[in-house]
Amino acid sequence: MTFNYGTVDQAFLDELCKITSEDRVSTSSALCEQHGTDESYHRSQAPDVVVFTLSTKEVSDVVKLCAAHNVPVIPYGTGTSLEGHVAALHGGVCIDVSQMTKIVEVRPEDLDVTVEAGVTRKTLNEYLRDTGLFFPIDPGADASLGGMTATRASGTNAVRYGTMRENVLTLTVVTPTGDIVKTASRAKKSAAGYDLTHLYIGAEGTLGIITEVTLRLYGIPEVINSAVCPFPDLESAVNMVISTIQVGIPIARIELLDENQMDAVNKYSKLDYAVSPTLFFEFHGSPNGVEEQIEQVKDIAEEFGGVDFQWAEKQEDRDRLWNARHNAYYAALTMRPGCKGVSSDACVPISRLAEAIIATKKEVDESSLYGTIVGHVGDGNYHTLFVFDPDNPDELAEAKRLNANIVERAIAMDGTCTGEHGIGHGKMKYLEREFGPEGLEIMRTLKKALDPNNIMNPGKIVAL
Amino acid sequence: MTFNYGTVDQAFLDELCKITSEDRVSTSSALCEQHGTDESYHRSQAPDVVVFTLSTKEVSDVVKLCAAHNVPVIPYGTGTSLEGHVAALHGGVCIDVSQMTKIVEVRPEDLDVTVEAGVTRKTLNEYLRDTGLFFPIDPGADASLGGMTATRASGTNAVRYGTMRENVLTLTVVTPTGDIVKTASRAKKSAAGYDLTHLYIGAEGTLGIITEVTLRLYGIPEVINSAVCPFPDLESAVNMVISTIQVGIPIARIELLDENQMDAVNKYSKLDYAVSPTLFFEFHGSPNGVEEQIEQVKDIAEEFGGVDFQWAEKQEDRDRLWNARHNAYYAALTMRPGCKGVSSDACVPISRLAEAIIATKKEVDESSLYGTIVGHVGDGNYHTLFVFDPDNPDELAEAKRLNANIVERAIAMDGTCTGEHGIGHGKMKYLEREFGPEGLEIMRTLKKALDPNNIMNPGKIVAL
Repeated sequence: MTFNYGTVDQAFLDELCKITSEDRVSTSSALCEQHGTDESYHRSQAPDVVVFTLSTKEVSDVVKLCAAHNVPVIPYGTGTSLEGHVAALHGGVCIDVSQMTKIVEVRPEDLDVTVEAGVTRKTLNEYLRDTGLFFPIDPGADASLGGMTATRASGTNAVRYGTMRENVLTLTVVTPTGDIVKTASRAKKSAAGYDLTHLYIGAEGTLGIITEVTLRLYGIPEVINSAVCPFPDLESAVNMVISTIQVGIPIARIELLDENQMDAVNKYSKLDYAVSPTLFFEFHGSPNGVEEQIEQVKDIAEEFGGVDFQWAEKQEDRDRLWNARHNAYYAALTMRPGCKGVSSDACVPISRLAEAIIATKKEVDESSLYGTIVGHVGDGNYHTLFVFDPDNPDELAEAKRLNANIVERAIAMDGTCTGEHGIGHGKMKYLEREFGPEGLEIMRTLKKALDPNNIMNPGKIVAL
Repeated sequence: MTFNYGTVDQAFLDELCKITSEDRVSTSSALCEQHGTDESYHRSQAPDVVVFTLSTKEVSDVVKLCAAHNVPVIPYGTGTSLEGHVAALHGGVCIDVSQMTKIVEVRPEDLDVTVEAGVTRKTLNEYLRDTGLFFPIDPGADASLGGMTATRASGTNAVRYGTMRENVLTLTVVTPTGDIVKTASRAKKSAAGYDLTHLYIGAEGTLGIITEVTLRLYGIPEVINSAVCPFPDLESAVNMVISTIQVGIPIARIELLDENQMDAVNKYSKLDYAVSPTLFFEFHGSPNGVEEQIEQVKDIAEEFGGVDFQWAEKQEDRDRLWNARHNAYYAALTMRPGCKGVSSDACVPISRLAEAIIATKKEVDESSLYGTIVGHVGDGNYHTLFVFDPDNPDELAEAKRLNANIVERAIAMDGTCTGEHGIGHGKMKYLEREFGPEGLEIMRTLKKALDPNNIMNPGKIVAL
């Protein structure tokens, strides 16, 4: 289907300024260009205008204006996604919520918090510091919580705490007609009708814009202990992870970095870890609980040749360790200055993880392209970062070929093409492969029903 | 809107028999009557025919036949729901999946299992016994796992393990056109497109029929310890629960029964617990972990006057304790032989739980009707069971009045009208109250888009 979108002319811009204010509406080409791109290799596609909203009401009014003129709407948080989610494929209005940074209410007695969509994960945790509570979901970037919800993000803590899917209680969403909807109550569980909250988590702004998020919080554990341990080879490291998960140890983080990634991390973060396949661990709990977990994990690691544990118990030491891990993507990119990255994001059932990673590693080693492997392996999720020269089309083609193989392998193992990055427009072709024509048709039906004019982030997830 | 449904005539029945077999198609009025009713007070509305399917393919073929003739389809598992979910409001075909009892595959190495929709929770756990794994979700009834998914059920273990919402990995669903859809891969997490799995969890068969369910499993804890402890009054018992949750103790079960319910349980299960507000506890973990939890819980309980803990460590003792708890609904019903029950199902943020329960208790005490309170209080979810004489319309009216007050109070506290029973046709009027007209309109849009002829369990959740 083709859609005849309206144009963003001066009269339209005047209306936008009336809803917000002149200094929050910009058509500057640099700003628009920047808002049309994310942290990936996908080329920028600039919106016609960027508007910085300050409230749910303003978002609603902007969307109503866009709906009346049939103008596309692209939500924008921090622009840190990786599949072209923010590219304005058909122009239109980019609604930047990064100034919606109110922490609406912290409710320690209910272990939850309501924030505006522009609050980032680090800002929230800084704000919470004195309450003894924290929010665990941590993608590499300091992303906005609205964007993290929209892409169903996760990170290193997901193995224990789940992803955004498990940690959003309720949302405020502006629909494609500008209606404001609350998707659920704050009750911890509910059987009341269709699950509107999960309808919008991971919908990438294609069904509406998230303006407020209510999240579960957790008590900061009494004891936190982190460690790094090198392994003789990749297979041993992965098999150690599989055993840990299968035994049911409630580990908080268990992350894999291959030798290339360790080399990059050492250089980027000025560290001197061994350059071999390595696991990063974190344990949360009571003093006894953590001690028990550590004993069990050390026993399993030893079976697989992992004996040289380096421990970090003090907060600053742990922060250094995990900052290095979170910066893995940026570290890999700086190994070839001026280059860009393609990050795969396969996630497979844990029993197939060794097979998936070993096959991937073999292909990376055989390729002329530089690549690293890093993964949230406790969940069966791993990334291969291919670093390519944007001026060399052969390199991008090679990265895409390898990425396609990774996806095919994951789907053949009853896994998914994306564990946490989302579909954007970069992975649309894999969605039918994963869900079959019947599954894709249901997604298309949902999109058509809820956004019949295809104005919400058009060209992402499903084509109409 | 009105829908002109097709009639179930002899030619249609012949087609049904061809798809299945003659002995699995029944129009017996007793059988149809029984399939039109659940365990609640809602009156039976019999389907025209009941068909017992044996496979996803058969379900698909039956649905295709119904779609071709515009005949309503009502899925049926064990008939243990509580809001008239299985009532054939517009006649039609009841698809009974209770003979679809294959355990398709247990995958201990992935901690998951795939079952056909008719497998019940107890059957699954018996089957799993030798694997060292279990499935924790446990509504009172021994319900089918397809039905539990369709109603987003939970039970006593939800405080630690979550509800069906958190424990279904993927589903096989037959859509209103008879298509067979797999809603997700088996990957532990995914950011691939719209969340089809959560679209069908809790949809009560109104968007399609669930024929297979893949569930997360958990290792049977090394140590399990249960206890019962009476409290001086209801408020103390509830406040004890609130403190336990707020401190973050990873308790597996924490259940409240008021003095009326304890009296009923004692009589029904031939026990001699104290007839006062009582908490039932269960602790899961390592020896040290359970010991830590117990120490903390005993300290908190003592603050609120709960000191007389009765422990049950042996499996048979624990089973006796939890069977008594699971039979609470039946126990209350037998306090007035020949009577029926109305069960409220409010769920509120934990900080409001004491207020909600105390206000409810006051109303029960002031009413002429016999009622008990029992709750999954760790989640903020509690039931009031009103036992009424079905021949006395005043009593049903009184039960409905009290139930309406409970719902209004829960919604005013940012809670929900149903924590785990679902909407069926019994709670439809509360759905708009809870979600507002905008939220309800989205639900209606989903239903219209996915089932435009309104053949799937029509008249439940939303009216078209």
